[in-house]
Amino acid sequence: MKLHPQSGSPQAAHSYALRVYYEDTDAGRVVYHATYLRFAERARTEALRDLGAPHAEMASQHGLMFMVRRVKVDYLAPARLDDSLLVVTETRSIRAASAVLRQSVTRGGRVLAVLDVELVCVRAADARPARIPPRWKQALARTCLEAAPSGA
Amino acid sequence: MKLHPQSGSPQAAHSYALRVYYEDTDAGRVVYHATYLRFAERARTEALRDLGAPHAEMASQHGLMFMVRRVKVDYLAPARLDDSLLVVTETRSIRAASAVLRQSVTRGGRVLAVLDVELVCVRAADARPARIPPRWKQALARTCLEAAPSGA
Amino acid sequence: MKLHPQSGSPQAAHSYALRVYYEDTDAGRVVYHATYLRFAERARTEALRDLGAPHAEMASQHGLMFMVRRVKVDYLAPARLDDSLLVVTETRSIRAASAVLRQSVTRGGRVLAVLDVELVCVRAADARPARIPPRWKQALARTCLEAAPSGA
Amino acid sequence: MKLHPQSGSPQAAHSYALRVYYEDTDAGRVVYHATYLRFAERARTEALRDLGAPHAEMASQHGLMFMVRRVKVDYLAPARLDDSLLVVTETRSIRAASAVLRQSVTRGGRVLAVLDVELVCVRAADARPARIPPRWKQALARTCLEAAPSGA
Repeated sequence: MKLHPQSGSPQAAHSYALRVYYEDTDAGRVVYHATYLRFAERARTEALRDLGAPHAEMASQHGLMFMVRRVKVDYLAPARLDDSLLVVTETRSIRAASAVLRQSVTRGGRVLAVLDVELVCVRAADARPARIPPRWKQALARTCLEAAPSGA
Repeated sequence: MKLHPQSGSPQAAHSYALRVYYEDTDAGRVVYHATYLRFAERARTEALRDLGAPHAEMASQHGLMFMVRRVKVDYLAPARLDDSLLVVTETRSIRAASAVLRQSVTRGGRVLAVLDVELVCVRAADARPARIPPRWKQALARTCLEAAPSGA
Repeated sequence: MKLHPQSGSPQAAHSYALRVYYEDTDAGRVVYHATYLRFAERARTEALRDLGAPHAEMASQHGLMFMVRRVKVDYLAPARLDDSLLVVTETRSIRAASAVLRQSVTRGGRVLAVLDVELVCVRAADARPARIPPRWKQALARTCLEAAPSGA
Repeated sequence: MKLHPQSGSPQAAHSYALRVYYEDTDAGRVVYHATYLRFAERARTEALRDLGAPHAEMASQHGLMFMVRRVKVDYLAPARLDDSLLVVTETRSIRAASAVLRQSVTRGGRVLAVLDVELVCVRAADARPARIPPRWKQALARTCLEAAPSGA
């Protein structure tokens, strides 16, 4: 299986821009801590789409979906109403049926929160783990900056 | 079809208590306006359950569900973090495939918001309108304070 | 006070594009009904920003904010995961301290939901109604398609 | 400073019951992964209240609040619509200005998700870390099952 991207499409982290609205904040006047998981999900969805591997097609063609198996969030500084944020997504490791992403929520270059997200590929029908199809594995590999992903 | 409750179970509005948490508020330091719809949905679910007609059984036994067709909210005064609220639910009218509920979000007897919610009974499979089954029609009728519901 | 936009900036509805993510949906496999209020709030925020009257400046310069006083939503057809939606916002009427907006959530030209939103301008300090400052009144007037807004 | 509870109030985990509503679920027909953080926040709030140390009083009396500094969630099995869940909260460690809680979301005795939450006590005015006041430290200690909390 081909894991490395073609020449001409070098590995790079994916960036997703968003704005903070009232819906994202809480009475502490900062972004509610669970909101960062919603931001990260949006960024992962758009990353897969931009890499040519939308999750909707993994469902329709393979009956598979990604589920979050584990997430760790470090909150470094609060985001606030009207902030313009960038979520930077990169792949840290890829295995046969799972992958770990590192997602950073940033504002003007400053990192506000770091999420480590372990996704597992499961069958939509019964939630049992399944191999990540090649197209999605390759898409994830294209945002893997540090090392070649482990083989299938 | 029997619409009126037995003697011994007089019509009465349903009350559902809840607390306001950070998740419900926004940077204006009040409950976010869309949150009231979540509160009202919780109250409707518990009202049907308390009246012996849980929506899960309408799905499993009849393949039907209630969808919100229309909602109108009047915001009279803000709810705030840690408030202890009561959602009072009553039925305003019942038709063959739909019903209108009036839900008031109150704090210490003061009305903070009033919601008029039109529910339509639909088939889960294709979202087409369907008659409300007798048990659910009767449950709704039991919180109908003002007048006898219109017949099927 | 000048309410009508300059020549070269004819009145027009404002459009805001968004995507539906898992966070927006519910177990009925459609967009959760309260989510439409979040979508509409994002669109109003961006409309004011695009019209040169961001709400953050109304707060910092005048100590004022818009609160939702009343909202009515008609749900015509469900939006679903991965849908690409457009929220079209126009002003229906403007008064000294309040305005009514009509917002349509559309997909491929089809209207899925229509929201009528009454906003009231209030002092951030005590939530008392206050006149909408000229810049914001003018911005709202620029998305008012049907008739000249009523004077201050 | 007195850290250990009186005899008659033995250490015990705190339990908080809740129901899953449509608002908590997503199009995968399970509870949305960020929802578990909302559930855990509700449970922490009620735990402090039940232990005689509501966070509102820490704010009003000391100008302090707890912020989430780090959270790790392991998702073991999905919760679903209408599930009746129990969130079990215990303290794992206490330091001068922070504490780590372990929160388990359970259904009928089965653990569905485990959250490790690090809270830091901060001044509401400027978000700078501050010592946890004795009453709140003692409340946290009362749900600390494994070992005596470390001293201030």
